[in-house]
Amino acid sequence: MDKKTIILGLAGFGTVGTGLARIIQENGEWIERRTGKKLVIKKILVRDLSKVRPFIPGPEAILTDNVQDLLSDPEIDIVVELMGGLETALELIRRSFEKGKHVVTANKALLAEKGNELFALAHEKKLGLYYEASVAGGIPIVQTLKDSLAGNRITSITGILNGTANFILSEMTSKGQDFITALDAAREMGYAEADPTLDIEGMDAAHKLVILIRLAHGADYPLSILPVQGISGVKAMDIALAAEFGYVLKLIAQVREKSGHLQAGVFPALLPMDHILAKVDGPFNSILLKGNAVGPIMLYGQGAGDLPTGSAVLADIMTLGRDKAGINNTGFREKVLPRADIVEPDLAVYRHYFRMTALDKPGVLSAVSGVMGEHNISIAQAVQKPGPEGRDVPIVFLTHRAQLKAVYSALQVIDEFEFITAPTVHYRILK
Amino acid sequence: MDKKTIILGLAGFGTVGTGLARIIQENGEWIERRTGKKLVIKKILVRDLSKVRPFIPGPEAILTDNVQDLLSDPEIDIVVELMGGLETALELIRRSFEKGKHVVTANKALLAEKGNELFALAHEKKLGLYYEASVAGGIPIVQTLKDSLAGNRITSITGILNGTANFILSEMTSKGQDFITALDAAREMGYAEADPTLDIEGMDAAHKLVILIRLAHGADYPLSILPVQGISGVKAMDIALAAEFGYVLKLIAQVREKSGHLQAGVFPALLPMDHILAKVDGPFNSILLKGNAVGPIMLYGQGAGDLPTGSAVLADIMTLGRDKAGINNTGFREKVLPRADIVEPDLAVYRHYFRMTALDKPGVLSAVSGVMGEHNISIAQAVQKPGPEGRDVPIVFLTHRAQLKAVYSALQVIDEFEFITAPTVHYRILK
Repeated sequence: MDKKTIILGLAGFGTVGTGLARIIQENGEWIERRTGKKLVIKKILVRDLSKVRPFIPGPEAILTDNVQDLLSDPEIDIVVELMGGLETALELIRRSFEKGKHVVTANKALLAEKGNELFALAHEKKLGLYYEASVAGGIPIVQTLKDSLAGNRITSITGILNGTANFILSEMTSKGQDFITALDAAREMGYAEADPTLDIEGMDAAHKLVILIRLAHGADYPLSILPVQGISGVKAMDIALAAEFGYVLKLIAQVREKSGHLQAGVFPALLPMDHILAKVDGPFNSILLKGNAVGPIMLYGQGAGDLPTGSAVLADIMTLGRDKAGINNTGFREKVLPRADIVEPDLAVYRHYFRMTALDKPGVLSAVSGVMGEHNISIAQAVQKPGPEGRDVPIVFLTHRAQLKAVYSALQVIDEFEFITAPTVHYRILK
Repeated sequence: MDKKTIILGLAGFGTVGTGLARIIQENGEWIERRTGKKLVIKKILVRDLSKVRPFIPGPEAILTDNVQDLLSDPEIDIVVELMGGLETALELIRRSFEKGKHVVTANKALLAEKGNELFALAHEKKLGLYYEASVAGGIPIVQTLKDSLAGNRITSITGILNGTANFILSEMTSKGQDFITALDAAREMGYAEADPTLDIEGMDAAHKLVILIRLAHGADYPLSILPVQGISGVKAMDIALAAEFGYVLKLIAQVREKSGHLQAGVFPALLPMDHILAKVDGPFNSILLKGNAVGPIMLYGQGAGDLPTGSAVLADIMTLGRDKAGINNTGFREKVLPRADIVEPDLAVYRHYFRMTALDKPGVLSAVSGVMGEHNISIAQAVQKPGPEGRDVPIVFLTHRAQLKAVYSALQVIDEFEFITAPTVHYRILK
């Protein structure tokens, strides 16, 4: 933009909005030194005008509960959408574009669901739709994929993208807690929301993964067909057993490219303890990328929080606000990105961890390993643990690489055996 | 740039130049999809035309040993300086600017020494001088500081910026090797040059640190006054002792900001084994940043090599090549960045590791700890190891936080004691 003052309209003034306002106040002179621009928050759309606010950005900012006050203000250059939710946010962004305003958003769910429509609209209007804050908080993964690694073909992305889930798994690992106790701890620390479903069931990570796939591959992977598995079923026992074998359990979002086809999903997986993502603990996020030129690259930082996420929103505002800023929303030039060429998820090949629960009687190990052999699943390690009075004996198998499809059909057969007393637990192992 | 084909002139065609040419060939269609631009290497300046080249980028590229062929070609949009060295490269860049050409360079020594002059010249001519490849190879640290974290005040940068030194220290640590053996291994693996002085004496890391300070703080820290200590004096014994105490020795480049003043230096230091940089092994680089909004952020990747460094050069070319690309060379708007406000390096406060070598006789520990007390150095741990026949007994002290100044004067006194049989070894400990 060729003006000296960039006028912002904030829609939503919760954690991230307040964080953004604080940073702009605290670092305002610095921002001006960097960009030659003054950032002014002129209007803030809130739901409840009567709510007491811990922080208001200067006397010039006007709080309003009427969206028209933002949209119809011709001075506002950038609408910063921090409301969350789908319908209202979608409508706000559409109308902001109609009014010729750029949009910065942290709304991962909306971009995952309606990204194609919104990017097409932005493309048509030649406006910015920027979203660094939507993935991994303060970690600059969006710009890294859009610009810094743009000349690479990305062959894989493996991410710990949800801080709540990672905190819970870290607590379970370090303290031997069960899921519910660790979830309560996350709530107490402010890392889990009142309704943590999106975080613990993997959907939040799925939203972010769809955004990363778009940035890395220039392709739309429909959220509705992305395989997503959360961590609410994870047992302390499997975390302890994994540790015995030298692994740690993490909620992973992954996409791998094989000759132009994409394999993607969100799932809990075992990582070897010397894996670069294995030490990412607590509420932190981290993303390991591999590019055909750059090789492996890893980024690490806080995936949430007022200031880290505010920092990412601010980066977008500053990028859009620079003189002669070209618009680069998706990292590609097409108005609409093509649908991803998707590999049937069950064809993906991994190493695997199984924990069977069986009666302690002769022939069990032989029957189970026989079924695995029939399904071409080669066993790398098998350990039978002592169980209570010969019942519910845990048997752990670590396998060599095998297709998920083979794993699923083997497990179907195995879990039908009368000596198997509980459904078999299965996790993938990343290398 | 508003043209569909970006014409490049390469100056230098060694490892990185060849890597860049390979990536452009391999990923050319992808680059076009991303930017709408075709990248063409038109001319390549080499020293020796008769040398057999493993790779030539298509029939259209002309090799020449005459710099005029690059400079006087009006079609060339970007000169890519990959020659290294100071004088010739400086001259080439100056003259490229005179001819109105943008410059992309990987030349950290030149930018550290002559950055201020070159950035001023680029500013005057409104031309790009981009240098992502100059620091940490493929890791996008330059763009991260220039754009993604631009709204942050950076409070500290702690980096492992030299892959050769890190490889040597990793070998010494994992195999108990002495410095010379590990250096030979680095040479054998192609990680050390014939003359490894710049790498092992810390100057290469110092060049990169000066560039990072400029990007993070908008200030010029003269290379000539940056305290730099390398690793050629590191003994296997100290690495082993550090490990006993739970630390690992790394060559660290660091800048810390205290109320607008900068403390910076390159030095070997002990990191706790659970420090996020402690696991950065072999030829990898990593940078841990702290921003006043984003908190801690870590980037990790390959700090050298044909394709990773080529990937960084390519990122710069693509950024400059985009339509309506604004120029952002330093991340600040000033023509000349001010000199950094520098804290006297000896005033820096760290925890410390000392290894004294002493005769095994009564009163030694008391005399030494007495001197430390007089210098306000508080001891956290002290261990006396058995030595050969009561001579050359190693005594290790780990201290609480103390000023370097106090440490240096205490060591001066201690090393004068007649029972001290060798100069005391001292490293800082990072937390």
